Amino acid sequence: MVPVGETRPINGVNGTSANQVQATQQQQRNPYAPRYADFLSNVSNFKIIESTLREGEQFANAFFDTKTKIAIAKALDAFGVDYIELTSPAASEQSRLDCEAICKLGLKAKILTHIRCHMDDARIAVETGVDGVDVVIGTSSFLREFSHGKDMNYITKTAIEVITFVKSKGIEVRFSSEDSFRSDLVDLLSIYQTVDKIGVNRVGIADTVGCANPRQVYDLVRTLRGVVGCDIEIHLHNDTGMAIANAYTALEAGATHIDTSVLGIGERVGITPLGGLVACLYAANPEYVKAKYNLPMLREIENLVAEAVEVNIPFMNPITGYCAFTHKAGIHAKAILNNPSTYEILKPEDFGLTRYVSIGHRLTGWNAVKSRVEQLRLDLTDDQIKDATTKIKELADVRTQSMEDVDTVLRVYHSAVISGELKLGDSRGFDLLLKRHRDSSVSRGDLTNGTVPVAA
Amino acid sequence: MVPVGETRPINGVNGTSANQVQATQQQQRNPYAPRYADFLSNVSNFKIIESTLREGEQFANAFFDTKTKIAIAKALDAFGVDYIELTSPAASEQSRLDCEAICKLGLKAKILTHIRCHMDDARIAVETGVDGVDVVIGTSSFLREFSHGKDMNYITKTAIEVITFVKSKGIEVRFSSEDSFRSDLVDLLSIYQTVDKIGVNRVGIADTVGCANPRQVYDLVRTLRGVVGCDIEIHLHNDTGMAIANAYTALEAGATHIDTSVLGIGERVGITPLGGLVACLYAANPEYVKAKYNLPMLREIENLVAEAVEVNIPFMNPITGYCAFTHKAGIHAKAILNNPSTYEILKPEDFGLTRYVSIGHRLTGWNAVKSRVEQLRLDLTDDQIKDATTKIKELADVRTQSMEDVDTVLRVYHSAVISGELKLGDSRGFDLLLKRHRDSSVSRGDLTNGTVPVAA
Repeated sequence: MVPVGETRPINGVNGTSANQVQATQQQQRNPYAPRYADFLSNVSNFKIIESTLREGEQFANAFFDTKTKIAIAKALDAFGVDYIELTSPAASEQSRLDCEAICKLGLKAKILTHIRCHMDDARIAVETGVDGVDVVIGTSSFLREFSHGKDMNYITKTAIEVITFVKSKGIEVRFSSEDSFRSDLVDLLSIYQTVDKIGVNRVGIADTVGCANPRQVYDLVRTLRGVVGCDIEIHLHNDTGMAIANAYTALEAGATHIDTSVLGIGERVGITPLGGLVACLYAANPEYVKAKYNLPMLREIENLVAEAVEVNIPFMNPITGYCAFTHKAGIHAKAILNNPSTYEILKPEDFGLTRYVSIGHRLTGWNAVKSRVEQLRLDLTDDQIKDATTKIKELADVRTQSMEDVDTVLRVYHSAVISGELKLGDSRGFDLLLKRHRDSSVSRGDLTNGTVPVAA
Repeated sequence: MVPVGETRPINGVNGTSANQVQATQQQQRNPYAPRYADFLSNVSNFKIIESTLREGEQFANAFFDTKTKIAIAKALDAFGVDYIELTSPAASEQSRLDCEAICKLGLKAKILTHIRCHMDDARIAVETGVDGVDVVIGTSSFLREFSHGKDMNYITKTAIEVITFVKSKGIEVRFSSEDSFRSDLVDLLSIYQTVDKIGVNRVGIADTVGCANPRQVYDLVRTLRGVVGCDIEIHLHNDTGMAIANAYTALEAGATHIDTSVLGIGERVGITPLGGLVACLYAANPEYVKAKYNLPMLREIENLVAEAVEVNIPFMNPITGYCAFTHKAGIHAKAILNNPSTYEILKPEDFGLTRYVSIGHRLTGWNAVKSRVEQLRLDLTDDQIKDATTKIKELADVRTQSMEDVDTVLRVYHSAVISGELKLGDSRGFDLLLKRHRDSSVSRGDLTNGTVPVAA
């Protein structure tokens, strides 16, 4: 056993790399996971309610025809989400038909539809074949005043009527407030307690305007956890970019169900994105998340939805952003080549993706260059590699060097050193050799922009 | 005075709208802000260290020439960031020259450069004319093992030497650990206490791998706040999408300085984005943030950087995402038209932007359509508007309706009702009228995709 943190030579006594042994131990130890069990936390015991086909339809660009809805529902089911939530059948005739069609697909995921807290909507919803109905009504003074104009007595009375009706049909029912974080706490707890007593399956908290922060979310969910016995769902808008963190924190406080949509699409800037939520839950417990979801499908699902709503995958998307696994600065590249866990908490291979180390730039370091020298099977000493690295930095100060540029520098440097044409530190001499080589050679074709794929 | 939450008629006694009076009171009351003062929190008392020209240079796509660096530095200064952090002058000769050039611009923002904890780098940095030097070294067992291979005694000794040297030159110095959330807590607190005692200006915590969650951030910053007297800076990577929330929570726990980059560009998926941080701090205290920063410049700065690194502004970007202020679902649209605070915590006009309500889709509602009817100065009763809305939903079930489509439906409906050709609910008759109109008319040109700008 190698104690964690002790410095050891690269090669262990049994021919195994000591670095590798230690890296495995450190990964198993998962040093960023909580050290002691937190019995309130559901970070390793949660369900996803995927709402691309409900909240996602409220995204400005979204218009899903029946075929697209079915393709998305099937992909989400294959990924392994626990629930799929659909637009209210009361919204339009086609919405109702699509809801029925998806219920008939025989998916493993439970199918929900999302309705206003109103008997008219409930009567239509229960006839569609859904496994459950998600009921919502605005409880904040803002929404009571400027949206539906109803008081808490009316809301409570209607909620009881709708919940009792849906339950009488033998299907799941959830009751959620809207704009919960701007609602009166006593009002909220009172209505949640009432619906819990009449046997609602879940209560929902919604940050409809995206105003909540993680500590508020923790406080409200934890308080509610002490008031109701049923499951707790949370729906979080992303107006200030905190929806992923708020979802994670809600699970820590005892929430059981998280609403997501693919790429977070929804009203305004949307809600907790499926991929981002998976990223932070994977970081907390990789084994649980890998066992529960088909992670390599994530990119395909994001592409499907991005194409349907005509948006690009954001460049900084967790996991699938196009440089999420690209390492650039010299000290990062060096450490990554030694042990990927140094700068990575997500393993790209678990998502069917590849790691890259970028070396053709002025922030590069000689250890990263050394790795390329070894891939090219060139025979250079460390001092020579450092010298060549200085040259790459000089060239990259003028413009970014592609991988072909870097390879050319290394090959020219290598042959000049072997032939004795070049001495260490002769920058001027090397410039002449490089120019002569470029004048006489033909292009060998560009291999990606200065990055090199690196095995795990 | 109108008590908050009480339902009142639309028009108040003095001719002012009771809704308006109440909305103003509710905004002033800022119901999503903490009710009691939290003396630990710096949410309304913080400084931004803008690192687009340091961390941002580590983004895979980034290559900033001198001209671009100067343009970005000037824009950030005009926006009002407190500090601008630059790539180490030890990285390359051009990096050193650029650092000197930016120091000579005479900006209001303080200029920092970011170096490894090494005397070689420090000697170069202090000669560039910077106002301060940010020193960093890896303290986690991962980095100590696989990156620089140094132990805590060596790290402490070097830190003292570098800090003392930089201070002797009369400029600011910050000492930061790297990968702080996977470092031994006792090691961390010990070195921070040591450097605090010798007069470091700031200590930095860095979530280098993006593994931290908000409650961990709160705990570590709050613990550190009790150990050191100097300022506390935090640098947060965004691999799991929690960097904005983590930054906000760090301020709540007593951090004083937050690292950002424009659009969050940096290693892998980057760090806390400037725009996202501004969004959540604005939501917490709009007046403070409006007074401190030139908010309408945000879009321009994001465009400048997006162009320089050849990325698109993510569609779900807080504030500047292209539908961040577009409202779609019928109940949202209705309430927004009544009072924007119902579904908005950020006022678009404070950022020089415009609110849109989208109405040409199957989730639309008659209140949203009514607003368009009024803009077109058509004379329809509520029942007629509801009837026309049903028609719009039917058409939108087939394909999204542009604003021209919606306007055509409303105009044809209006003239048919006026002329007595159409009765309420005669869907078939209306289809014929609409077809006849389309066959006989020429296109009037498309006005944006079914959305209508709405005044504050």
